[in-house]
Amino acid sequence: MGRITQNLQVPRVVSTDTEVFVNTRPDTVAVEEPLEIRVNGTALTTTMRTPGHDIELVHGLLLSEGLITDASEVYTARYCAGAVGPDNQNTYNVLELDVIPKENPKDNPLNKSHDQPRSPLSGTTRELNLVAVQRNVVTTSACGVCGTTSIEQLMNKKGWPITPIAPDPKMIVSLPDKLKSQQKLFDKTGGVHAAGLATLDGEMLIVREDVGRHNAADKVIGNMLMAGKLPLENTILVMSSRASFELVQKAAMAGISGVIAVGAATSLAIEAAQDAGIFLAGFVRGNKFNHYAGELG
Amino acid sequence: MGRITQNLQVPRVVSTDTEVFVNTRPDTVAVEEPLEIRVNGTALTTTMRTPGHDIELVHGLLLSEGLITDASEVYTARYCAGAVGPDNQNTYNVLELDVIPKENPKDNPLNKSHDQPRSPLSGTTRELNLVAVQRNVVTTSACGVCGTTSIEQLMNKKGWPITPIAPDPKMIVSLPDKLKSQQKLFDKTGGVHAAGLATLDGEMLIVREDVGRHNAADKVIGNMLMAGKLPLENTILVMSSRASFELVQKAAMAGISGVIAVGAATSLAIEAAQDAGIFLAGFVRGNKFNHYAGELG
Repeated sequence: MGRITQNLQVPRVVSTDTEVFVNTRPDTVAVEEPLEIRVNGTALTTTMRTPGHDIELVHGLLLSEGLITDASEVYTARYCAGAVGPDNQNTYNVLELDVIPKENPKDNPLNKSHDQPRSPLSGTTRELNLVAVQRNVVTTSACGVCGTTSIEQLMNKKGWPITPIAPDPKMIVSLPDKLKSQQKLFDKTGGVHAAGLATLDGEMLIVREDVGRHNAADKVIGNMLMAGKLPLENTILVMSSRASFELVQKAAMAGISGVIAVGAATSLAIEAAQDAGIFLAGFVRGNKFNHYAGELG
Repeated sequence: MGRITQNLQVPRVVSTDTEVFVNTRPDTVAVEEPLEIRVNGTALTTTMRTPGHDIELVHGLLLSEGLITDASEVYTARYCAGAVGPDNQNTYNVLELDVIPKENPKDNPLNKSHDQPRSPLSGTTRELNLVAVQRNVVTTSACGVCGTTSIEQLMNKKGWPITPIAPDPKMIVSLPDKLKSQQKLFDKTGGVHAAGLATLDGEMLIVREDVGRHNAADKVIGNMLMAGKLPLENTILVMSSRASFELVQKAAMAGISGVIAVGAATSLAIEAAQDAGIFLAGFVRGNKFNHYAGELG
């Protein structure tokens, strides 16, 4: 599709005390386009993303929102043929999914052996609650419990069990450079975030970039979900950005054991990591980091 | 409420080739908490934000989403009394609003004089389309036009008319430092974004900080909306972050004439600014910037 970056002629302005210089030169910017996600004929949400790896993105998003636990629940995913732009070309900006939730997804690796933990949703009656996801809150709640209900739902999504880790500090400080070496879009544009998934040996399994940090994380998790690799125990989600509550929650839903961020962590990210038993470090720069949750090796 | 920052004891880890030093010391992190916004009894959305200036935030958000054009349309805004946390204290995380849309909001300064542009929604029949905002897309659309309909709606929200500006480059490069001098939360935490609104003389009218850049912009715009100062012609939105499509759209909805960002601009932010007649500069650092849309003075 060739739409991940866009080349422009951009005036570069230098303003000195006495003069202004303008030098127009080629510049590459990160593409941002809307992706509308339709599930079983209903518009779920529209996210602004960098095109590419869209199928991974929607798998990661549906997992994060608790709508699926296994890739086999997504029966089909296709770009809508009717979504054409002014040039009569498909925009590739509308994805239609057929999702059939299963009580015990047969392809789910967690259901293959009784020695392993079971899918968090197995054994429960499942219905696709699209409305709750659309609003990110429950639909109705009488005042008196208002807020608590919907906010608790936000906080208490059930993901995979977390396997605690005690990572080596030397390995942790090596991860941002490994992420950066694969940030091709950032090199070109200076304007995208990256998410990576690393082993406890410091091997980077996959890196994805996107104008939205949440999308980058969803693409990484979606890729692993489609490869049947959940829960992602003994792995670390490496973010070029800050660590927010939502990123820790995405990790929790996928069973990821740790999150490290080049930027700051928020209060709720720290609280959520501590509650979930997820290792969390922030400001991982040079040979230093802040250690917010979990144990060091 | 004292919840804008949180003080923690955080281990600071230094990993050298031979040793690991851990020094636990006081650290301040930015607070992130959910704010549930209910409009006329219906849950509209839940946003993760830094508490404080919540009323400004919801005014800015409702304007950005096209639900109101004037602060007088928000009849009441109150924290839900029933939203209490485990300590039996109000969480201040649920805001209930009574919104009555008006065809011609009488307090709207734009309706006081025929010499000024009218409210973009005046003269039209208005209904609160909460569902569209909840989903960020239209509710239903037959395939064949699918995607185009909802994405066009996303792109074509009608805001105030834009008054074109041709700002002085020397003034532009002065704005990030002026913003930074008022970023009190960032100084403490290193983890929040800031939005400011500046005049063409480079005077910073207001600065707001938040873990979410969109929230920071909504707080700035909401403050001005509540003060009856829309459209914000001949002003510039100054962002500590990158410039995304959504930020340019928020500016357009409020009639802001220019947007400058310390970080990169996305393809769609540039396109939206060019379409709307909004001045846009990115990578505004030191005495340099990239000039993406509008005219230089």
